[in-house]
Amino acid sequence: MRSDPECLVCILKQSLNTARIITSDINLLRTIIDQTAEQILRSDLALTPAALSKPVYEIVAGVTGTKDPFRELKHRTNLEALQLLPELEANIADADDPLSIALHLAVAGNIIDLGIGHDFDLINDIKAILNTEFAVDDTEDFRRDLQPGRQLLFLGDNSGEIVFDRILVQELVGRGLAVTYCVKSGPIINDATMEDALQAGLTEMVPVIETGSNDIGVDFNRISSEFEAAFNRADIIIAKGQGNFETCDDASGNIYFLLKAKCDVVARELGVTTGDIVFTHSPA
Amino acid sequence: MRSDPECLVCILKQSLNTARIITSDINLLRTIIDQTAEQILRSDLALTPAALSKPVYEIVAGVTGTKDPFRELKHRTNLEALQLLPELEANIADADDPLSIALHLAVAGNIIDLGIGHDFDLINDIKAILNTEFAVDDTEDFRRDLQPGRQLLFLGDNSGEIVFDRILVQELVGRGLAVTYCVKSGPIINDATMEDALQAGLTEMVPVIETGSNDIGVDFNRISSEFEAAFNRADIIIAKGQGNFETCDDASGNIYFLLKAKCDVVARELGVTTGDIVFTHSPA
Repeated sequence: MRSDPECLVCILKQSLNTARIITSDINLLRTIIDQTAEQILRSDLALTPAALSKPVYEIVAGVTGTKDPFRELKHRTNLEALQLLPELEANIADADDPLSIALHLAVAGNIIDLGIGHDFDLINDIKAILNTEFAVDDTEDFRRDLQPGRQLLFLGDNSGEIVFDRILVQELVGRGLAVTYCVKSGPIINDATMEDALQAGLTEMVPVIETGSNDIGVDFNRISSEFEAAFNRADIIIAKGQGNFETCDDASGNIYFLLKAKCDVVARELGVTTGDIVFTHSPA
Repeated sequence: MRSDPECLVCILKQSLNTARIITSDINLLRTIIDQTAEQILRSDLALTPAALSKPVYEIVAGVTGTKDPFRELKHRTNLEALQLLPELEANIADADDPLSIALHLAVAGNIIDLGIGHDFDLINDIKAILNTEFAVDDTEDFRRDLQPGRQLLFLGDNSGEIVFDRILVQELVGRGLAVTYCVKSGPIINDATMEDALQAGLTEMVPVIETGSNDIGVDFNRISSEFEAAFNRADIIIAKGQGNFETCDDASGNIYFLLKAKCDVVARELGVTTGDIVFTHSPA
């Protein structure tokens, strides 16, 4: 999807919020803001919001010398989510419709997004989301698609969230699907990397591959041949979070987007209201 | 007060929000954002947030050719407030402490601030604010200061709000003070001008003067001699809203700041929490 002028305001906000995790030095913050302002002037709104915001994280890394500002936070959110895991799994054990619960838990995990600066209260949000209907709900399409032996590629999003995804992965494996989980090849915001997949225990469950780059979502100009093959081979793709929606919405493939619409620009694109959760099928 | 790096993010947000009142043309919006990004690069954080954001409104006016984008909104908020006036005045008639109610109503009026893009629900906010304590409350200082015959200069803030100020002005006049009300000399955001003072009926109650410029708050380098004389002559000054606080907090004078802290930067400066209402005495 294209970017909106609103995205230019958002990247300046992301820039300062990310910088403040690392430093409170006014001069460094000012340098980062100025470099982001220069980046805004160079930004092409034909690009995706994900592509537009990536240079901001490079600016913050460059000015502060901190390549992975969210590293500690990522580790902590994984631990926090792992502590919740038994409670989450109990929801599934008692469920009439475990697939629906697993989808809701996976999107609940998507709330753990430290990149944009929204407050969250983990437990309350999880309970609320379990009782929230998808504003677009293609669960029945998905259910019909889940034939044993099919290849399913699962595009992960953030750390923390990756632990919640375990439950959906387990449900899919239990239905006989050949699931491959995908993480980023390097740090970008709080997106899950192989380190997080290991910490979350996903590597013990299914094959885990990398996109080939540390882009937000997927930059199809920078994917590895391994990722390209997995993407093309997949009978079904689950793409989680805004970054994957922003970058894969025009891709061909039998894709299900699973996310919470966290900003007006993405909500508008999805035809929903900001804050809505969505499970939408794009069978192109 | 000095600006914070956060103010640079805020001015980009203000720029787009204001532009969108006038146009949805992507090219115009982009031009305005780019000019604001260039303005950010030139911005001196030693300036007040008010001084920092003023050029943004000039950019929007320049690019769109609309000198007073809030004109219709200002007119409408005045009308809306005038319709509420009898109900507001009834609160005073029944009050044990009319001065305290009038101060609360005047700050309730400060919520009607269309410049920054906050949502508001007028009636509910008024009721809530009548029951809210000032986070800093110098009402007792103020009460002691209100001696008959004293000169009081009242620095107004926004349209709509100016109607609410009538009640406090009436209370002060009733206590024998010589009140002069002050508006801006030209349009800036939704700040009250002489046109609003006329519409609100304030000109029939007390002398109304202008600051001498269309700056947000007061730019002491651009005030008229009439304003300067009134400011220096005043025994008591009431300065309403964030713009007046940002620009008058270092001025000498017996000043009472009456406002809602609408952003983290101003809240931090006041030592309160964003959203708090404040009536603070600066007797410097």
